[in-house]
Amino acid sequence: MAKIKKQPRPKAETPKGFRDYFGGEVTQRAEMLHAIAGVYHRYGFDALESSAVERVEALGKFLPDVDRPNAGVFAWQEEDEGDWLALRYDLTAPLARVYAQHRNDLPTPYRRYAMGPVWRNEKPGPGRYRQFYQCDADTVGAASMAADAEICAMLSDTLEAVGIARGDYIVRINNRKVLNGVMEVAGVLDHSHPEKFEAERGIVLRAIDKLDRLGTEGVAALLGEGRRDESGDFTEGAGLSAAQAGIVMGFIEARRETGAATVARLRELVQNSEIGRQGVDELEEIAALLDAAGYGADRIVIDPSVVRGLGYYTGPVYEAELTFEIFDDKGRKRQFGSVAGGGRYDDLVKRFTGQEVPATGISIGVDRLLAALREKGRISAQDQGPVIVTVMDRDRMADYQAMVAELRNAGIRAEVYLGNPRNFGNQLKYADRRASPAAIIEGGDEKARGVVQIKDLILGAQIAESATLEEWKEQPSQIEVPRDQLVDSLRDMLERQGKGQNG
Amino acid sequence: MAKIKKQPRPKAETPKGFRDYFGGEVTQRAEMLHAIAGVYHRYGFDALESSAVERVEALGKFLPDVDRPNAGVFAWQEEDEGDWLALRYDLTAPLARVYAQHRNDLPTPYRRYAMGPVWRNEKPGPGRYRQFYQCDADTVGAASMAADAEICAMLSDTLEAVGIARGDYIVRINNRKVLNGVMEVAGVLDHSHPEKFEAERGIVLRAIDKLDRLGTEGVAALLGEGRRDESGDFTEGAGLSAAQAGIVMGFIEARRETGAATVARLRELVQNSEIGRQGVDELEEIAALLDAAGYGADRIVIDPSVVRGLGYYTGPVYEAELTFEIFDDKGRKRQFGSVAGGGRYDDLVKRFTGQEVPATGISIGVDRLLAALREKGRISAQDQGPVIVTVMDRDRMADYQAMVAELRNAGIRAEVYLGNPRNFGNQLKYADRRASPAAIIEGGDEKARGVVQIKDLILGAQIAESATLEEWKEQPSQIEVPRDQLVDSLRDMLERQGKGQNG
Repeated sequence: MAKIKKQPRPKAETPKGFRDYFGGEVTQRAEMLHAIAGVYHRYGFDALESSAVERVEALGKFLPDVDRPNAGVFAWQEEDEGDWLALRYDLTAPLARVYAQHRNDLPTPYRRYAMGPVWRNEKPGPGRYRQFYQCDADTVGAASMAADAEICAMLSDTLEAVGIARGDYIVRINNRKVLNGVMEVAGVLDHSHPEKFEAERGIVLRAIDKLDRLGTEGVAALLGEGRRDESGDFTEGAGLSAAQAGIVMGFIEARRETGAATVARLRELVQNSEIGRQGVDELEEIAALLDAAGYGADRIVIDPSVVRGLGYYTGPVYEAELTFEIFDDKGRKRQFGSVAGGGRYDDLVKRFTGQEVPATGISIGVDRLLAALREKGRISAQDQGPVIVTVMDRDRMADYQAMVAELRNAGIRAEVYLGNPRNFGNQLKYADRRASPAAIIEGGDEKARGVVQIKDLILGAQIAESATLEEWKEQPSQIEVPRDQLVDSLRDMLERQGKGQNG
Repeated sequence: MAKIKKQPRPKAETPKGFRDYFGGEVTQRAEMLHAIAGVYHRYGFDALESSAVERVEALGKFLPDVDRPNAGVFAWQEEDEGDWLALRYDLTAPLARVYAQHRNDLPTPYRRYAMGPVWRNEKPGPGRYRQFYQCDADTVGAASMAADAEICAMLSDTLEAVGIARGDYIVRINNRKVLNGVMEVAGVLDHSHPEKFEAERGIVLRAIDKLDRLGTEGVAALLGEGRRDESGDFTEGAGLSAAQAGIVMGFIEARRETGAATVARLRELVQNSEIGRQGVDELEEIAALLDAAGYGADRIVIDPSVVRGLGYYTGPVYEAELTFEIFDDKGRKRQFGSVAGGGRYDDLVKRFTGQEVPATGISIGVDRLLAALREKGRISAQDQGPVIVTVMDRDRMADYQAMVAELRNAGIRAEVYLGNPRNFGNQLKYADRRASPAAIIEGGDEKARGVVQIKDLILGAQIAESATLEEWKEQPSQIEVPRDQLVDSLRDMLERQGKGQNG
C-alpha cells in the first residue's frame, strides 16, 4: 500500500486541480442533470452507471485531446503485481467496455445515458479542474443515420428543457467522411496507404477545430508552414501546398444559406471521392430526417467548419453552441460557445470483440452549460436559506425544537440555532450568513403572552441598506403574532418575499 | 505514469469488486437520494460535494472497520515525487478536511449533507463491492445535544419519506460516555492512564457490536477468554474477569420498558464515574428534546446495546434498524437490520486545526436501504420501457421519426426502431427486451388508408402466457386507429395498462 509520511498536523487542502462544491452549486447541477435525464428517458435512453474505476487496458489510449499526448489518467497497480487500474477519463470508453461485456444481455440497438464525474491527470489551470462532470447519451449498434438525427434532435430538446431559449443556441452538424473526401482530393489521404499522411491529417483536423479562435488566416497558416502565436511560440503546420490548403479551406467555408445549398457545394468539393460522396449522402439523409421531425435551421444546421478534434470519429459529428454574447475575462464581447458535442465512432467496441459495432453519441459539458444558465439568469448561485428559530432561553430548547418541527412539517425549511445562544447578535449574524428569509423569536416575555416575533430578514436587509439608524431601530420588519398563527403568518411573509424578489 | 502492457485485444471486464448499474437500478437510487435530500434540505442542511480524490495525509487512518486493519484505500503518488493521493473511503473524513479548510467562509454551526460513491481497497466478496454509495448528514460546530436529537429526528423523517412505514423501523440511541463509565466501573478505563487497556476496550466495543449475530453468550465469551466459532477459528477475548464482564453485560441488557426507566438503570450502572454520569445526562437530554418534538418510542428509543464499532465516536451514537422480517440466503427468517448509523465525533477536525470542534452526524447505507424498499415492494427493479415505433418501410424513416417526435412532444416515452428493420420479428423481440408497453405499426397499406396499428404488448404478453396459439393469432390486443388519433388512443391504452398493473 501507499507509504504515508507521518506528520503531526496534516494540511487541510484539496489536492491540486480539485475543488469542493457547496450548496446551490451542487443542487443546481443535480436539478439540471435531472431535467436532462428526463429528456433522454423520453427518447427511450436507459440510465447506466459504470464503475468509476476501470482496468487500464480496457480504457485504452483514447484520451481525447491529442494536442497534449502527456495528458493522462490517474492510475495505480493492484497489490501483488495485479491489474493496473485507473479512474475513467470520460464516459465513452467505459460504455464500449460495458457494451462488449454485457452485449448478450443488452438490447440492440442499446440507447444509454450516463452522467457523473470523470478524472484527467492533467496540469490544472485557472477554471480547469482534474475532476469534472460529463453527461452523455449514445446509441450503440445502430448504423442508421436516423440514430444520428435523433441524437441531434434530442440535444436541441435538452438545451430547451434546461432553459436555453430557441434562438440562443444552434446545433451544427458535419461529417468526417466529407472531410476525408476533401483530403483525398487534396492528396493527403490515400486509401491504399491509410497510415500515410496521418500526422498531416491530424494537424489539419486540429487546425480546423481552432477556426473560432484563430480565424481563417490562422487556420491557413497551420495548414501550410505553421504559425507563430502572439507569445512567439511556433506551432508546426501540416506542410500543405497552397493548392492543397485551398481545397481544405474551401471545405471549411462551404456553408451556404440553406442545408440543400451546403450539401450541393460539398458534393462539388468531394468530386469523385467515394468516401466523400458517402459523407455527403449521410448529411443529406440526416437533414431530411430532421426536417421531417420539424427541426429547422433555427435549431440544427449543416456546417462544414465543425470537425471536433477527437481522433476517433468516423462519420457525422455534431456540436451545440450557445450563440448569445457574454463578456470574457478581458471584458471583450464574444459568443458563449460550445456546450456539447459528439459524433459517430464505429471502432470503439471492436477493440474488445473484434467485431465492428456502429455507435454514435453526444457529451454535454455540464459545468459550461451550468455557467451559461447562470449567465442567462435562469438560476441564481444562492440557495434559499432556512428560517432560523432563535434560542432566547437555553433551558427551553425543547420548546424551540417543537416549534421547528412544526415548521418543517408544514414544508418550511427551518432550523433551530445550535451554536452558543448567549450572544443574540451572533444568532442574527448566523441567519445572515445562511441567507435566511426570517428569524423567529420567543423570549420569556413572548412565551408568557402566548406570542412570537417574526423578523423579516429580507425586508430588514433592504431597510438596513437604505435607512438611517433611527429608522432601523423602529424595526418595522418585525411582526408579533399569536403563537398558534406562527405557521400561517410565516408562510404569508415567505410568499410576499417571493413575489417581491420576482417582481 | 502507469506502465501499460501492450495486448492485442483487452478483456471487457469491470475490475474485481466493481460493478455496473443499469436502468432502474440507477434511476431508483437517484430518486431515493432526491427524496432524502429533500428532507435534509428542509432541516436546513446544505449540500456539499467534495472532490472524490483527497491527499492521503488529509484522509488519515480513520478507516472505520478496525477489525480488518489491512483494509485500505486506493492510493497513488503524483508525478515527480509529489503528494500521495487517494480515493475517499467515506464522506466524514473529507467533511473534516473541508470544514478545516473553509471554516472562515462557512456558517457555524455548519449543517451539511453529502451523497456519492466512496471506495474501499478491500477484498471483494459476494454482494460486497469496492465502490458503493453513502449518504451523510452532519452538524459541525455544535456541542449541544439538540444537534444529536435533530439528527435522530431527521433520520426518522427520512426513512418515512423514502417509503418505510412507521412501525417498520426504529432509531436506537446510546452514548459512548455511558459505556466508558461502565468500563471505568469495571476497571478497564483509567482516566489518568487513557492508553492503558486500550486494546481490551477495543475488543469490548467490537464484541458488543456483534450482539445481534453472536447473542449474549457469544459476547460474554469475547469479553472473557475468547470465542471459537463454528469453523473452529478462535477470536481472542478481552480477558475480563467474570465480575468485570458481568458489569459490561449489565450495561448491554440495561434497556427497560420506557426511556426514563432505562436512564435510571444506566445511572445505577455508572455509579460514581464522572464520564458515565455525563453520558446519562446527555441521553436524558436527547430523550426530552425528542419527546417535545413529538418523536415517541414508536420511532426512537434509548437502547444500551448499540455501540457502533467505529473507534472515533465520543458521545451519543445512533443506529436505524428496519424491523420487518425477510428471508436470508439460507431461507431463515430474520430482521432486515441496520440501514443507517452515526454518532458524535469531536476529534476529527482537531487533526487539522489543533482545536476541538464538536460534530455529529449519520450515514445511510444507500444500497441496503434500496434493497429494503425493493423488499417491501415500494419500487420495482424494472423501468417502464418506451413505446416502439416499428419500421415497416425503410424508405419512410422520416415518417417514423416525425411520428416518434409527436409522441415525445406529448410526453410519451417513445423511440423508433434503429436496428436492421428487415426482420419484423426482431423488432418485436427488441420491444420485448425493452419492456415496451406498446408497438406502433404503419406499413404501406396503413399509410394509404390513413391509419396506424397499436399493439398492446402488456396485454399481448398476458394472452401469450395463457392462450393457445389459435387464440393468439386473432391478436385481440392490436387495435387500428386513424393516424391523427394515434396520440390519444395510445395514451388511453397506457393509462388502462397502468390501472391494470396497479389493480
